[in-house]
Amino acid sequence: MSTAPDFDEAFKDKLEDLFRWRRDVRKFKTDPLPVDLVDKILSIACVYSPSVGNSQPWRFVKVNDPKRRAAVKENFEIQNREALDNYQGEKAKLYASLKLAGLDQAPVHIAVFADTQTERGAGLGQSTMPETLKYSAANAIYTFWLAARAYGVGVGWVSIVDPKMVADLMDTPPEWEFMGYLCVGYPEEENQTPELVRHGWQERGELEAFIFER
Amino acid sequence: MSTAPDFDEAFKDKLEDLFRWRRDVRKFKTDPLPVDLVDKILSIACVYSPSVGNSQPWRFVKVNDPKRRAAVKENFEIQNREALDNYQGEKAKLYASLKLAGLDQAPVHIAVFADTQTERGAGLGQSTMPETLKYSAANAIYTFWLAARAYGVGVGWVSIVDPKMVADLMDTPPEWEFMGYLCVGYPEEENQTPELVRHGWQERGELEAFIFER
Repeated sequence: MSTAPDFDEAFKDKLEDLFRWRRDVRKFKTDPLPVDLVDKILSIACVYSPSVGNSQPWRFVKVNDPKRRAAVKENFEIQNREALDNYQGEKAKLYASLKLAGLDQAPVHIAVFADTQTERGAGLGQSTMPETLKYSAANAIYTFWLAARAYGVGVGWVSIVDPKMVADLMDTPPEWEFMGYLCVGYPEEENQTPELVRHGWQERGELEAFIFER
Repeated sequence: MSTAPDFDEAFKDKLEDLFRWRRDVRKFKTDPLPVDLVDKILSIACVYSPSVGNSQPWRFVKVNDPKRRAAVKENFEIQNREALDNYQGEKAKLYASLKLAGLDQAPVHIAVFADTQTERGAGLGQSTMPETLKYSAANAIYTFWLAARAYGVGVGWVSIVDPKMVADLMDTPPEWEFMGYLCVGYPEEENQTPELVRHGWQERGELEAFIFER
């Protein structure tokens, strides 16, 4: 067993910067990403993410087929229009003005799934909480997201799609559950403030809203 | 808008170390943690974690009541014995030998929930995928986990409990869904290899198992 690295004050400050500057990116440059860069970030996510029972249930599907990409974009537009119907008046106007996905510009698209029937890990930790498999896949998306940010790459997690439609489109095993569609590329801009705060949709809450005692 | 920080090669290497050395910790020192240290790590998780629609649905409940802690431990032991019944022969022996939670020693216990009916974010991004609220809470746990590791603090995410029992025990709103019980404290040891790999339960897979193309 090697000695653990020293995570000094400078690193801890920079780590907090990383968390602070990681955005859900919707505006991308169309510049291609080097393939080995994408593979590096994917590798970090796939090897080091936490998973219940070491199940590693994440499945990252790089979507390169233009027809599949077009179908996802079309579905996003349909679902986004339907979502707009949930709002009225000023809220609806604001919703309609938001850019919620960079499907057109992002050079790399990745559909992420959780293999809900993986034998890896032999079910350890899942008996009473089978949903932990999906939480592990969500954590792998977040590892990808953080690592990408450190490498200057932006990621947008698109959930405004019909999960069943995307799964069928990707021709993946039926036990794979769709987690999200990632738009990946160099961001048009960097910002330490979330888009939805900047555009007036939702402010951040105070800590008292999130931390309790029993 | 300030200039984004530079995440240089040294930081990227150290970030990869952080991912590599973050463990699910089951063996803790009983030494108390400074309250402001726990609050710092909680603050990082609550302010900076990604969330669908900026909903911030995470609810961290610090469990200080010894009776509640004892009840969780008792439930873990019951559920762990039941989980053992899923295995036979050598696998069962191995399962029985694993230490799967540090409930006895960890000085800090936190029950984490997702507020599935939060109005924050006004449902943005959730219409077709309401489960993204829980994925956001899972990611807040992971931010806590990573930040803790950078501060030399270990975290174990315990899922071998009855989620409904823990929710009832914590007397939290019924719409809060239990995500996991965190044991938090200084780890007895550091290791860059997952416990379940070290103890022969589950090896890590190769990248081909996780990355696909369409």
